[in-house]
Amino acid sequence: MMTLKDQVLKQAKEARGAALQLALVSIKDKDAALKAMARALTHSRGSIIRANAKDVASGVKTGLSPALIDRLTLTDGRIKEMANGILDIIKLKDPVGEVLDSKVRPNGLRIDKIRVPIGVAGIIYESRPNVTSDCAALCIKSGNAVILKGGKEAIESNKAIYKVLKGALAGSKVPVEALQLIESTERQAVVELLQLDNFVDIIVPRGGEGLIRFVAEHSLIPVVKHFKGVCHVYVGAKADLRMAEEICFNAKVQRPGVCNAMEKMLIDEKVAAKFLPSMAARFRGASVELRGDEASRRIAGDIKKALVQDWTEEYLDLILTVKIVKGVQAAVEHINTYGSRHSDAIVTQDKKEAAIFLKGVDSACVYVNASTRFTDGYEFGLGAEVGISTDKLHVRGPMGLEGLTSYKYQIYGNGQVRT
Amino acid sequence: MMTLKDQVLKQAKEARGAALQLALVSIKDKDAALKAMARALTHSRGSIIRANAKDVASGVKTGLSPALIDRLTLTDGRIKEMANGILDIIKLKDPVGEVLDSKVRPNGLRIDKIRVPIGVAGIIYESRPNVTSDCAALCIKSGNAVILKGGKEAIESNKAIYKVLKGALAGSKVPVEALQLIESTERQAVVELLQLDNFVDIIVPRGGEGLIRFVAEHSLIPVVKHFKGVCHVYVGAKADLRMAEEICFNAKVQRPGVCNAMEKMLIDEKVAAKFLPSMAARFRGASVELRGDEASRRIAGDIKKALVQDWTEEYLDLILTVKIVKGVQAAVEHINTYGSRHSDAIVTQDKKEAAIFLKGVDSACVYVNASTRFTDGYEFGLGAEVGISTDKLHVRGPMGLEGLTSYKYQIYGNGQVRT
Repeated sequence: MMTLKDQVLKQAKEARGAALQLALVSIKDKDAALKAMARALTHSRGSIIRANAKDVASGVKTGLSPALIDRLTLTDGRIKEMANGILDIIKLKDPVGEVLDSKVRPNGLRIDKIRVPIGVAGIIYESRPNVTSDCAALCIKSGNAVILKGGKEAIESNKAIYKVLKGALAGSKVPVEALQLIESTERQAVVELLQLDNFVDIIVPRGGEGLIRFVAEHSLIPVVKHFKGVCHVYVGAKADLRMAEEICFNAKVQRPGVCNAMEKMLIDEKVAAKFLPSMAARFRGASVELRGDEASRRIAGDIKKALVQDWTEEYLDLILTVKIVKGVQAAVEHINTYGSRHSDAIVTQDKKEAAIFLKGVDSACVYVNASTRFTDGYEFGLGAEVGISTDKLHVRGPMGLEGLTSYKYQIYGNGQVRT
Repeated sequence: MMTLKDQVLKQAKEARGAALQLALVSIKDKDAALKAMARALTHSRGSIIRANAKDVASGVKTGLSPALIDRLTLTDGRIKEMANGILDIIKLKDPVGEVLDSKVRPNGLRIDKIRVPIGVAGIIYESRPNVTSDCAALCIKSGNAVILKGGKEAIESNKAIYKVLKGALAGSKVPVEALQLIESTERQAVVELLQLDNFVDIIVPRGGEGLIRFVAEHSLIPVVKHFKGVCHVYVGAKADLRMAEEICFNAKVQRPGVCNAMEKMLIDEKVAAKFLPSMAARFRGASVELRGDEASRRIAGDIKKALVQDWTEEYLDLILTVKIVKGVQAAVEHINTYGSRHSDAIVTQDKKEAAIFLKGVDSACVYVNASTRFTDGYEFGLGAEVGISTDKLHVRGPMGLEGLTSYKYQIYGNGQVRT
């Protein structure tokens, strides 16, 4: 029997070979393969649901929370959504082949900069099985081979989906080996994958901070990641306070479990007494637990004392920490010290303060007078979302299909040599 | 006394603070600081040369090769060149602030994508002391703070240059803390730096493969790197053989010690008998040692037998390995299997074969009818070269000033919330 190391290596080598072929496949043929994948998913939903039932049964037995069981469960409707997701990806423009730049140098060399697929992507994710088909489709659309490693809770579902998608590729111009699923549920399989920098070009981890830190620490391959979203809204001294209340309420309450939800609210001392009491009451009405500094606790009752770790923690829950600050510069400094460089907003009618905030806050997405909840590939018009990056290299903020591309230089000469 | 860990952490924190300020400094003030740096270098060359003499004396004592001693030695002329290098960087366009994209979404949100500095760059390099001033100037021009870690052979020179440059910054609008030199000569200092992903945004290692692998293995911070340049020239069946000879000779001999020099020559079997004997004679006349496969050795005498490792080795010397291949597809496959994804060329008059090669070879720079030696930031019109990347993320091929930038999204609303 093959060792785990050899098995992962074999899959990575197959993916690399397939990537070199896939880079040459036309958009027509890639889209035809995607269509076959969508059709196969719909057609085979019976077998996928049967496999999924095994995962759900194991999950119930091992005591997964009802929320996790819900995320794990596949239904007829959810599989149709997965298929529709692939059909939506077909509609996107092919990012590959775009001429990003072209110039002729004084020596006559023509240098074209052409967008190309990255090559082989490794995607490491937690339990939601729909990620398996989403990522497979996004990678194939952008001409990349992909090695998928899903969470062990969803292993039977992922294997079933993988089998269906591979079957669909078999009748297409996309090499079957462009799609790889690591079936081992050992974490060591992830470690083996992360060493294979000769064969895998990019790693995208999707999941909680623990998974992402594990991947970042073990990878020799470049990783695009965000650890967490500790998003701030700063209500400035010149804010329209009704607008501020709507933005803060939306940013916290509309979907508290996502990375672009507000976790910290900063209020300028000049408007705190006017703004905080009614805002706090509204949050309480929505069952939001408030924690705060001394100044905020003097203004509004029923705010718990914030601890040191509250300023950096991502709750992903109906909890909010409040701080009163002295002016926009103090807000910027607080965010740059305690934030996660994800998404932060100022509410103000003062253009000068807005400009200071926009330039000064060192985050991927900085907002004036809008909710942080808009940080999202679809909302940004990227057509898809592979993930979000709080790194500053390659891609920052929402990562669309272009985030799965690189470029190469194609240089045309007529005998030029260097002197 | 501070521990090494604390010392490096202190410098990284200072650099991060300075980076946030430097991102707001105008191009006029950045250029003024660069001018002061150039002037100070010229003015203080006496003290720099005295410090350099200590490094040279230690180097001779520890038995550095004459080539390394030469690279290490600073003269009046070389320091003037360093100062002129900074004056050249002043002439470059400021990359920061460029609007890369701007769109208004259906909900009225305006999303601007703005080029910004990356933040804090860590540059780890070997013995050439001119890198200290080059990298300092490139980083300041692009609005980045920089932490420099040079080779221990040049430590006295680097300290002297650093002192001069810091002195020049003291009278400028660029914060003095934007420039940091790690003075410890212990390798552990590099390891400490590579852990500080909260404060440092990008690592650029410059040096031999050993250094770069060490950095890639230990870094939690994204690294832009190239391990080595194993560059190929493929002489196709339809090549202009006189052009092929000039290109191959130039690519191998003009400067064999650099990463874009040819290390392997592939010849189509259809032209091998006609091309190789005179080419080999010309190489021998230039003291190039030839190694080759069986087929090439049958055609030309005086070719040593190539060993397995010859196909992947970067000699950086007057050595060349030769292989006879069956057609362009075989050449592409050989390069994708044994190459380093740096720079590879085809010589051919056949446009179809050229297109197969350009699309099929998975390297940063792919040439038709030109020498691989042109892979260089200046030759590509980037105005500067921070390094070369054989990774596919962030930057691929020559890295100019733009390679030291990221972007951020600035989003303007009038109260938008997500529904």
